[in-house]
Amino acid sequence: MRLATRADGSRDGALVVVSEDGARFLPAPAPCRTLQMALDAWAEAEPMLRALEERLAVGEGDGLDASALLAPLPRAWQWLDGSAFPTHGELMQRAFNSPPHDGDRPLMYQGLSHRFLSATEDVRLPSETDGIDFEGEFGVIVDDVPMGCSASDALARIRLVVLINDWSLRTIAPVEMKTGFGWIQAKPACSMAPFAVTPDTLGQAWRDGRVCLPLHVEVNGMWFGNPNGDAMAYGFHELIAHAAYSRDLPAGTVIGSGTVSNPDHERVGSTCLAERRAIEMIAHGGPQTPFLSFGDRVTMTAGPFGKLDQRLAQTGSA
Amino acid sequence: MRLATRADGSRDGALVVVSEDGARFLPAPAPCRTLQMALDAWAEAEPMLRALEERLAVGEGDGLDASALLAPLPRAWQWLDGSAFPTHGELMQRAFNSPPHDGDRPLMYQGLSHRFLSATEDVRLPSETDGIDFEGEFGVIVDDVPMGCSASDALARIRLVVLINDWSLRTIAPVEMKTGFGWIQAKPACSMAPFAVTPDTLGQAWRDGRVCLPLHVEVNGMWFGNPNGDAMAYGFHELIAHAAYSRDLPAGTVIGSGTVSNPDHERVGSTCLAERRAIEMIAHGGPQTPFLSFGDRVTMTAGPFGKLDQRLAQTGSA
Repeated sequence: MRLATRADGSRDGALVVVSEDGARFLPAPAPCRTLQMALDAWAEAEPMLRALEERLAVGEGDGLDASALLAPLPRAWQWLDGSAFPTHGELMQRAFNSPPHDGDRPLMYQGLSHRFLSATEDVRLPSETDGIDFEGEFGVIVDDVPMGCSASDALARIRLVVLINDWSLRTIAPVEMKTGFGWIQAKPACSMAPFAVTPDTLGQAWRDGRVCLPLHVEVNGMWFGNPNGDAMAYGFHELIAHAAYSRDLPAGTVIGSGTVSNPDHERVGSTCLAERRAIEMIAHGGPQTPFLSFGDRVTMTAGPFGKLDQRLAQTGSA
Repeated sequence: MRLATRADGSRDGALVVVSEDGARFLPAPAPCRTLQMALDAWAEAEPMLRALEERLAVGEGDGLDASALLAPLPRAWQWLDGSAFPTHGELMQRAFNSPPHDGDRPLMYQGLSHRFLSATEDVRLPSETDGIDFEGEFGVIVDDVPMGCSASDALARIRLVVLINDWSLRTIAPVEMKTGFGWIQAKPACSMAPFAVTPDTLGQAWRDGRVCLPLHVEVNGMWFGNPNGDAMAYGFHELIAHAAYSRDLPAGTVIGSGTVSNPDHERVGSTCLAERRAIEMIAHGGPQTPFLSFGDRVTMTAGPFGKLDQRLAQTGSA
């Protein structure tokens, strides 16, 4: 099942179920008018939404205008982003000569969740000198998860899978990282691809809490990378259990994989500029690929999630 | 003006205006049924709430049962906690022989905001071996703040001031801090004292974006400290501007001061165990005060915010 959120003037938008080809939709009924409402009462909402999916399968529904969509979850109570691809961490450590992380614990930070940008809106940021970068990631949206939930129990609490671009400011990131407090200025709002899908929609590509699909990234229409989400050192269920050690997670919490990265990066490329620059530093002694400029366009696609296609612009510009 | 939120079975509770002596209340009208709703439309809400304040001043209202209150803001879209008291940072650095932070930028992390515990509910945590600690802090709740807001403009976006206990797990904290990603497991839900007050309510104690009041902490009925909030290196308006560099802050964002700490800590004590233990390490070569045990009680009071009075309990216990 594929869900999206149509703009209707409200902050949370209006939940719709989308046909398999992404071309048609049916609006969700009143008890699950928004995705957050559906997640808050998933046991009741799911059968209603599945019934709409069946009607869409036999040709019902209206034409979907992808440009009228918000992020499937336009705001969330919590966004916890991992960094679960070891190749990415190793490349960054080699390039910057930084000590390796303790491999026994997932890496995770809490980021801005009150706004996920839509797949097509301009990304407005203050300055090109901040080292503007993208990060292609998969994410899951969970039901309520109680404190102390085990990884095996957590797998059954995953309701939806999403594709995310975690915009990052690389000049500020190491300064904030050095404090140990994590990132505030270096992590502005993320973007979410238009369709949130139930794990069963992924079929065999949903394995061991991992999205086993290539994530295609283009910058200004040029191939940048297509590494696969299967290479996570920890599955999403393990990231959820890590997050829930000393807190309940509310329904609608989004958990991110971190930048998708594969050991054969020479062949499949990367999903962020910082990693490509690290590879260049290791190979050539210095980075060659610049960070983004205003006007640049970044697109990401993977499986059934639809397309992220955004242009960078300066805060306050037209 | 003093606001509180009564438990009514919903997650956000019901907003009330409270009399100056904290003994009586009047319920807020429908357009500001919850504090988040009032903050989302403050220009319209404030006159309605001020009118109730006037009626309370002439003796109207019902008796307030403090035990039936939730946190004034039971959940928030964003919680950004600073560490703005230099004495605290200096003591921790001396005790742990860690490098000093760059003083040119405020320290700040994003923490769990989907739940603020009430002032009287038990604090449930998984294990005493995690080094359970409290942190007495002041905080502000802001209106919408646009990306790029200056510190001087930010001062006028502060709607309410609150008193917070930022519960912390000290055994996990340095492990997470070392990653540079900030804290997930080490920072469970915070608690909020019962009354959120408008800055004018503080009179002369609201100066230069600082809450110039002593914060009294007791542990199991014994004095622990009463340092003053005036010693912040950055005012709340400067913390807000720092946070808003690359993000809009939604109405209802809570910004924290970090552990209140004063240079004359020998006289006024501390507002967290970690700081007292650091002082003991510097003076005696090792800490003497243990972290908390289940059953321990921590109380905090300051000015007009009412009393935080909570007991520690183990997750899953009766």
